[in-house]
Amino acid sequence: MKATSPLHRVVIIGAGFGGLEAARHLGHQPVDVTVIDRSNHHVFQPLLYQVAGAALDISQIAWPIRHVLRRFKNVTTLMAEVDGVDTTAKTVRLTDGKRIPYDTLVIATGATHAYFGHDEWAQFAPGLKTLGDALSIRQHLLTVFEQAEREPDPDKRQKLQTFVVIGAGATGVELACTIAELALEEMPGDFRHADTRTARVIVVEAASRVLSSFPEPLSDYVLKTMEHIGVTVMLNCPVTECHADGVVCNDKRIDAGAVFWAAGVRASPAAQWLNVPADRAGRVKVEGDLHVAAHPDIFVIGDTALVEQENGKPVPGLAPAAKQQGQYVAELIKARLHNRPAPRPFRYRNYGNLSTIGKHTAVVDFGKVKLRGRVAWAMWALAHIYFLIGVRNRLMVALNWLWLYIKGDRGARIILSRKS
Amino acid sequence: MKATSPLHRVVIIGAGFGGLEAARHLGHQPVDVTVIDRSNHHVFQPLLYQVAGAALDISQIAWPIRHVLRRFKNVTTLMAEVDGVDTTAKTVRLTDGKRIPYDTLVIATGATHAYFGHDEWAQFAPGLKTLGDALSIRQHLLTVFEQAEREPDPDKRQKLQTFVVIGAGATGVELACTIAELALEEMPGDFRHADTRTARVIVVEAASRVLSSFPEPLSDYVLKTMEHIGVTVMLNCPVTECHADGVVCNDKRIDAGAVFWAAGVRASPAAQWLNVPADRAGRVKVEGDLHVAAHPDIFVIGDTALVEQENGKPVPGLAPAAKQQGQYVAELIKARLHNRPAPRPFRYRNYGNLSTIGKHTAVVDFGKVKLRGRVAWAMWALAHIYFLIGVRNRLMVALNWLWLYIKGDRGARIILSRKS
Repeated sequence: MKATSPLHRVVIIGAGFGGLEAARHLGHQPVDVTVIDRSNHHVFQPLLYQVAGAALDISQIAWPIRHVLRRFKNVTTLMAEVDGVDTTAKTVRLTDGKRIPYDTLVIATGATHAYFGHDEWAQFAPGLKTLGDALSIRQHLLTVFEQAEREPDPDKRQKLQTFVVIGAGATGVELACTIAELALEEMPGDFRHADTRTARVIVVEAASRVLSSFPEPLSDYVLKTMEHIGVTVMLNCPVTECHADGVVCNDKRIDAGAVFWAAGVRASPAAQWLNVPADRAGRVKVEGDLHVAAHPDIFVIGDTALVEQENGKPVPGLAPAAKQQGQYVAELIKARLHNRPAPRPFRYRNYGNLSTIGKHTAVVDFGKVKLRGRVAWAMWALAHIYFLIGVRNRLMVALNWLWLYIKGDRGARIILSRKS
Repeated sequence: MKATSPLHRVVIIGAGFGGLEAARHLGHQPVDVTVIDRSNHHVFQPLLYQVAGAALDISQIAWPIRHVLRRFKNVTTLMAEVDGVDTTAKTVRLTDGKRIPYDTLVIATGATHAYFGHDEWAQFAPGLKTLGDALSIRQHLLTVFEQAEREPDPDKRQKLQTFVVIGAGATGVELACTIAELALEEMPGDFRHADTRTARVIVVEAASRVLSSFPEPLSDYVLKTMEHIGVTVMLNCPVTECHADGVVCNDKRIDAGAVFWAAGVRASPAAQWLNVPADRAGRVKVEGDLHVAAHPDIFVIGDTALVEQENGKPVPGLAPAAKQQGQYVAELIKARLHNRPAPRPFRYRNYGNLSTIGKHTAVVDFGKVKLRGRVAWAMWALAHIYFLIGVRNRLMVALNWLWLYIKGDRGARIILSRKS
């Protein structure tokens, strides 16, 4: 690995949890780092469902990438879209035709929702991966309630006030619970004709339990809690049709005013860019030190990478895993530059798995210790506020949650339209 | 004025400052009130330029109308667009064909930007009247800086970093100053290639002074302060052309990366709905008690109304004037209902005119007393925080300003795109 420019050039594609962490750990180092992202901001994805549910506003969970990296004078941020990598010339190709040369490349481009071969469902069942997605879902959700208020026919009104969430992973559970709490607890007093307490929130899941990444006893607890909040859960119920008026699963038709997708993700097209094989979810299989076989100068991290653990299972697609990988790659690049021995292969340290179910309950899996209920919820809330960037946003989110919990009042119930 | 339903029906079109104030003062009264607005939220327009300038986020200056009016059980909120009024049948016609009957009608539909017969300029020079407008301007502004960072040609980069604001009224002055402070003070450290300190912000104004609603000595002070902040002001400079690359005024071509419109407003089409004459700005001339001649049951208030004062000048199109008119009409309706004598004709009480110039200075005109500088700024800030709705939003805005002033760090520099 010889530097061909005065400084070794590291290009990082994607400023999610993995890419941003890699950039930070290469800050103030004798390397020339370029971070390329198609948007101008880093998003705290674990709270995206709260933007969709109108509890938080966009700026509270998003930061301009160049501002976060401002103090690292060796790091340049480019807002641009990548459409390929030339591994021979060692350049990244942008959609505007420009090429950015690299000595070492880190691909951290994440994942997007996948419709299992039914891309036409995307228009009827928007997914939740970006701020734009969250705002679309918020608009759709709030607009349906406004339509119901104006609808004189009670059957049509009930259909409008039926919400289907496809998928009972963490995002699906969180989204469904926040919609249920909005409709059943917080909004009834705001409407005069429609009774939002009659709204139905239905989660349809192909598997036999909710939150399948958690141990089975916790899944049972989550299911009961969801039902207590007012969410209907339909298990063993794979969706076979999805259209403007609802979904079909197990030959049962469910009419709905809005359908949201939280069922599957697919890695970004890094495998195509590199012309290397991918697994079924589009992930690039990487070696123990996260480089791509045959390309020692290219690393793939986060949701785009398939990293096998000692137990044979892949590292999960979670924020802490991506951050650990970002830091690992930065340390490895520094070791190479300073001719220090390479670090030992990457090992994912699982500090625990958290998921929240509504406003009062969460489940936490620390491996040996498992928690649920209000104490788990407090841990979830503290952890999420802690991992936000900056004191202001922590205060803002805490303040918004305080109001939501004490007064049942969400801060961001704003429908934006061309005319509004 | 005889009630044709069990309760007298008041329909209020528009939930800006005037309409919302009227609805609140009719709350808990023996009348059936319906508030119709095409958006679901009330906007605090005086701070809209801060959303455009990425200092505040949308939810901090906007509230769901139905939530604000939630406690008044006699008030129904409808999100719908009005396309006419049938004064014979006494109904309001919605764009979906529905009709809403009224006994008394209050039209408070505000104003929109006007391009003086050049509607084709709207695409090149967006104005600032709604949250959607503010977000568009924010996107445009932030995107131009991102383009400049990627532009290798210094001339093109300088053109990109040139911003033209058309009009030197309060909105134009505030918008120009916030763009200048963003580019010249706060953002330079974030970029590596482009030097945002070389950005130019130009205000072009057809009249001979800025803020012409203020006394002349204050205008001179504002002009000097703007120049000190780094804004170039071109007076006596009417715009004659406006296109994708900039503007032309006094036969001088100014190339720009972005052009914003703050030059003129036009009242909403209430005059057409009622088939009554309007003045040049589209306003409906109303009688001393704000009703429309020949329609004693129809009131027009706020920016849509032309209300003459004793000195012959019209009541200015300001938030306090609209609120006073909203309250006045509510009191008048209550007096009629209870067969009390009608209140005396409406009289605008001018409690002072405030405008801010950048982060440290404002001008205040109390009539006899005139203030400028930091004390005026503090009064401006306190007044604006006071008039926000709800403790949470006051805290949020105060917190955002604190960070902006102490750390030069804006909270909402987020570019939203379909893909972001």
